[in-house]
Amino acid sequence: MTTTKHIAVIGLGSMGCGIAKSLLRAGHQVYGYDLNREQVQKLINEGGHNGNDTVESKYLDAAVVVVLSSTQMETVLFGPKGIVHNMKTGSVVVACTTVSPAFAKEMEAKCIAVNVHYLDAPISGGSIKAADGNLSIMAAGTPAAFTAARPVLETTADTIFELGDEAGAGSAMKAVNQLLAGVHIAAMAEALTFGMTQGIEPKQFLEVISKCAGTSWMLENRAPHITKGDYTPHSAIDIWPKDLGIVLEIAESVNFRAPIAAAALQRFTEASNSGLGSEDDAAVAKIYADEVNLKLPGQ
Amino acid sequence: MTTTKHIAVIGLGSMGCGIAKSLLRAGHQVYGYDLNREQVQKLINEGGHNGNDTVESKYLDAAVVVVLSSTQMETVLFGPKGIVHNMKTGSVVVACTTVSPAFAKEMEAKCIAVNVHYLDAPISGGSIKAADGNLSIMAAGTPAAFTAARPVLETTADTIFELGDEAGAGSAMKAVNQLLAGVHIAAMAEALTFGMTQGIEPKQFLEVISKCAGTSWMLENRAPHITKGDYTPHSAIDIWPKDLGIVLEIAESVNFRAPIAAAALQRFTEASNSGLGSEDDAAVAKIYADEVNLKLPGQ
Repeated sequence: MTTTKHIAVIGLGSMGCGIAKSLLRAGHQVYGYDLNREQVQKLINEGGHNGNDTVESKYLDAAVVVVLSSTQMETVLFGPKGIVHNMKTGSVVVACTTVSPAFAKEMEAKCIAVNVHYLDAPISGGSIKAADGNLSIMAAGTPAAFTAARPVLETTADTIFELGDEAGAGSAMKAVNQLLAGVHIAAMAEALTFGMTQGIEPKQFLEVISKCAGTSWMLENRAPHITKGDYTPHSAIDIWPKDLGIVLEIAESVNFRAPIAAAALQRFTEASNSGLGSEDDAAVAKIYADEVNLKLPGQ
Repeated sequence: MTTTKHIAVIGLGSMGCGIAKSLLRAGHQVYGYDLNREQVQKLINEGGHNGNDTVESKYLDAAVVVVLSSTQMETVLFGPKGIVHNMKTGSVVVACTTVSPAFAKEMEAKCIAVNVHYLDAPISGGSIKAADGNLSIMAAGTPAAFTAARPVLETTADTIFELGDEAGAGSAMKAVNQLLAGVHIAAMAEALTFGMTQGIEPKQFLEVISKCAGTSWMLENRAPHITKGDYTPHSAIDIWPKDLGIVLEIAESVNFRAPIAAAALQRFTEASNSGLGSEDDAAVAKIYADEVNLKLPGQ
């Protein structure tokens, strides 16, 4: 039997919405925060509350942060309207945004200073898994932070990697995953369009390569968007200049050379600058196709 | 019931040896050609023949070419001691070496001119699958070439992609696969060592990332070599400057930009130049580790 908790979800994009829905389904009281009123209204329609109006943060057991950047995270936690200073002793911030390990450690210290737990908890899996409560969470934090976050973790994830007792390890693993995921998407696009220059149709590419040593999780997930010509954003191009930017920022801070990640970042940046930022990230293939006047399916 | 065929295997490296063994197991007469006498002797010990001494190429039903480069392939097929001009009408060259599609088309034309079939048939799967008869073959050629090559294909592969009725399509698909496979190995090495700079142990990297969106076939296959510190070459570093070189040569010939493949090629070239050429290709991680004074497992 689940005990009802009061849980805020801050940032109601596709991931935040999915997390909020999973929490509602489990019987929790969910308070949605977002600058976009429409997203908050959607949550209210499903049984949630408007976090901006109806609840003081002092009643919260947990605040799940799913905003887009570290700047936004710092604002919602510690800005002029930041919630942490009002949160009760023993409550927890579950930080799902992709940030640098150093930033995660800084946020943890500031939370602990006011007796609020902090779980470094980047997520992976995409919007469909978020809505189904089947995310993967790469988590690190004190045992007390894990305990306080347990109702959130249990409800939203089917895989929880417990990576250590200090914030930062979760964000580090997420950065490693994003390095690979970003490179694999761009490499898939590079290989698919390279194949087209040699007469290989995208459908045949997917059919053959997904059964060969060249396959990747991202190839099997994203190449079908290209073969169908459907760039509805499951995960948008603009995620990648941000996430690969974080990867390279961390790398530079320790003088680590990551030339393959840098090459992928450049392609996503070019795609974003070409106006493709809000399309599905598989649209990075359009950059390659345009350079040699190839027509992708549906174009 | 298999009809016994007379089949040459030219190039008795790890892939050629595996193919020869599979053909012997199926009851064929197998003639091994290799400059390295030891490799030929090994085949004789298993029931094969010395192709250089005991058979005239005019008795061959098929010649499987598994040499290392297009230069070697041209020499064994059409050089001063080349076999094709002696091969009988209706016999077939099964060309497994990774070459450019243009080169494959040229070889096909030269074979057809003397009434020998040519199957463009690059292989994938590694030495273990070769020995077990479980290769993947990306094949293209005339229907008659496929028919003539059938005894070889059936015996050596568990997956045969039939990619068209003209040589070149098999080599094109192989190039696409090698682009991805090479990038994925180097990206795995980049991500694994990047993770180490953030305190993530290689074992934990493999455990977590293999279950996340950042995984790839190559990551799951090669990262264990690093966690075990075992660089016994299943596939050597030196494969990649060659194969990614072919990819970029094809790309340049159609003005296609492949910056991610180019970045991976550079890392393998650096690894080869550092004396790692004959180690397993997972040793590309040593280049990354050395740059930031990390110690990989076993080092």
